[in-house]
Amino acid sequence: MKKHILVVPGDGIGQEVTAVGKKVLEKIAEKFGHEFTYDEALIGHVAIEATGEPLPAETLEKMRASDAILFGAVGHIKYDNDPHAKVRPEQGLLKMRKELGLYANLRPIKLFDELLEASSIKPEILKGADILFFRELTGDVYFGKRERIEDGNTAYDTMIYSKYEVERIARKAFDAAMTRGKKLMSVDKANVLESSRLWRETVQAIAPEYPEVEVTHQFVDSCAMMLIKDPKQFDVVVTGNLFGDILTDEASQIAGSMGMLASASVGDSTGVYEPIHGSAHDIAGKGIANPMASVLSAALLLDISFGLKEEANVIINAVDQVLKAGFRTGDIATKDTPKDMILGTDAIGEEILN
Amino acid sequence: MKKHILVVPGDGIGQEVTAVGKKVLEKIAEKFGHEFTYDEALIGHVAIEATGEPLPAETLEKMRASDAILFGAVGHIKYDNDPHAKVRPEQGLLKMRKELGLYANLRPIKLFDELLEASSIKPEILKGADILFFRELTGDVYFGKRERIEDGNTAYDTMIYSKYEVERIARKAFDAAMTRGKKLMSVDKANVLESSRLWRETVQAIAPEYPEVEVTHQFVDSCAMMLIKDPKQFDVVVTGNLFGDILTDEASQIAGSMGMLASASVGDSTGVYEPIHGSAHDIAGKGIANPMASVLSAALLLDISFGLKEEANVIINAVDQVLKAGFRTGDIATKDTPKDMILGTDAIGEEILN
Ligand SMILES: CC(C)[C@H](C(=O)O)[C@@H](O)C(=O)O
Ligand SMILES: CC(C)[C@H](C(=O)O)[C@@H](O)C(=O)O
Repeated sequence: MKKHILVVPGDGIGQEVTAVGKKVLEKIAEKFGHEFTYDEALIGHVAIEATGEPLPAETLEKMRASDAILFGAVGHIKYDNDPHAKVRPEQGLLKMRKELGLYANLRPIKLFDELLEASSIKPEILKGADILFFRELTGDVYFGKRERIEDGNTAYDTMIYSKYEVERIARKAFDAAMTRGKKLMSVDKANVLESSRLWRETVQAIAPEYPEVEVTHQFVDSCAMMLIKDPKQFDVVVTGNLFGDILTDEASQIAGSMGMLASASVGDSTGVYEPIHGSAHDIAGKGIANPMASVLSAALLLDISFGLKEEANVIINAVDQVLKAGFRTGDIATKDTPKDMILGTDAIGEEILN
Repeated sequence: MKKHILVVPGDGIGQEVTAVGKKVLEKIAEKFGHEFTYDEALIGHVAIEATGEPLPAETLEKMRASDAILFGAVGHIKYDNDPHAKVRPEQGLLKMRKELGLYANLRPIKLFDELLEASSIKPEILKGADILFFRELTGDVYFGKRERIEDGNTAYDTMIYSKYEVERIARKAFDAAMTRGKKLMSVDKANVLESSRLWRETVQAIAPEYPEVEVTHQFVDSCAMMLIKDPKQFDVVVTGNLFGDILTDEASQIAGSMGMLASASVGDSTGVYEPIHGSAHDIAGKGIANPMASVLSAALLLDISFGLKEEANVIINAVDQVLKAGFRTGDIATKDTPKDMILGTDAIGEEILN
């Protein structure tokens, strides 16, 4: 198979972890006789520093020309505490999602058995949990009108959804449910929000097309509680952009660590594959970041964008073997992990590649 | 002390649990020689059935005339899956909050040691966690303009905050932090939302008035993760209405069960004290609901609205003793709880009253 992959490391540990993810893709290509070509592009803080823009036109062009994108992270602490910053790394991320029509963010939450002990949740509560989130990614309060009014003393954002936006993400979620446990939970706040009532009625209208799928509707507050109380009851979850942002980060704790979770953003054309963790500037450059989420992002890329299931499984198994052999990065080590089994980014990358 | 208390049971198990909460208040009055008078009023689904209104004018009048309100729950499943219902129980709740100016919702999250095992989170992660949430309660997307547009195919809600709204809740949270661990975390989504940037800059502007308080700012997604990963790092948390709704329900899992958590809503005049659990129609009328959140709401009422700290502690200790003696309701029982120690609503109420 001939494919063109764009690597977009972004900020902070994005640089270190995507380097490992890319090596894994190269190894797979070699092993299975695929011809992957690569290019690289800037986004986020590093792009602002280099060009003044969080998503330079050149990056967007390269993205459109790619078959898939291996993405790192964006963000920098210097903007976070400056409510007046006009240009922000996150704008690059949001613009990319919108421009590329990446309306569906898939986040599989599944625990490697070896990491049962790394979670703060009890092993018996976790064991067997396997959740697939569909977070809507190009609508909601992320893209509605926002403004300062009344001399800057009042600020608003607009939480907005249109029927077709809900329909297309709901269909993806229903389709996925059909290939899994046939259970779909739609999450909203329909007891208060009009946009949620539109969300709910749209999901309800599609449900009859999937008579085999058992559909439930939950309020977001209640879902946030249930995820911790009994994660095993979930199969596929579909929700809006903001609720999905919060719930998927929370659900990362089911997998023991954010450092293990990959996500896929897909829609009209190319797909973006990235760790769910952020740029983590506090540990950037130290060579200790966990690259496994980027490695697993590479697996998702092969699976979803290229349909290469076998290749994807080789990667997942390689990660599993490394964990089984006892190797850990700092974030997933427990007090029982021997010091010499705690490896840095590149060293654990080498173990995965072997 | 002479005080007038309004009891507003509302819907579902609200009826059963506030009955126990009220008995506890009566017992305290007797024991400490206070003169509490009581009245009762309707809200929510029961009010709609009786009067057509989720918050009848008579209820609001009685509320204004009260020194404090012991509240149950509102909500009924029949409205939840009907996105077109014009009148909803929740409207009564929201209108009450707005009309009474209840802008600060306090939710203390603290685990009774006896319930360490009832949580899905590991005991060693939980032990010692003690968090006080301040959720803003009369602003945000709950009260902004909402509308259907484009022939009903698009819906929006407005997430809106003004500086004075953030200031008053932030001041309450800073004041509380000064009496506790002197740590305050403000939670927002300032990397995306303009209302969050206003929130953050307003909290930053107040911080210098409290030089002893260590202030941090977290994004809501990250906070949702940290609450599970390491709940002990939190002291006081202040956040907006929507984020607070989600995070406090999630945090209920730190306390082992929603059935144990009380909340206080205070502001300009009278205060409302209620369990954080909902109307739970699935178990309503069965006499098995856990009344302890209502009992602890009564304790919060005495403490916050009447300044009766000793009386409040008597109640908290009574609950603690009942737990220490091994009594449980179904929701907080574990597989090791002997069947005959699992009591119903009234029976465990009697144990608390003894
Ligand atoms: C960085 C931020 C804008 C982003 C989001 O909120 O979508 C991030 O949290 C994510 O989940 O990808
Ligand atoms: C019933 C609902 C409107 C309410 C809210 O969202 O505020 C409830 O979840 C709560 O937290 O009191």
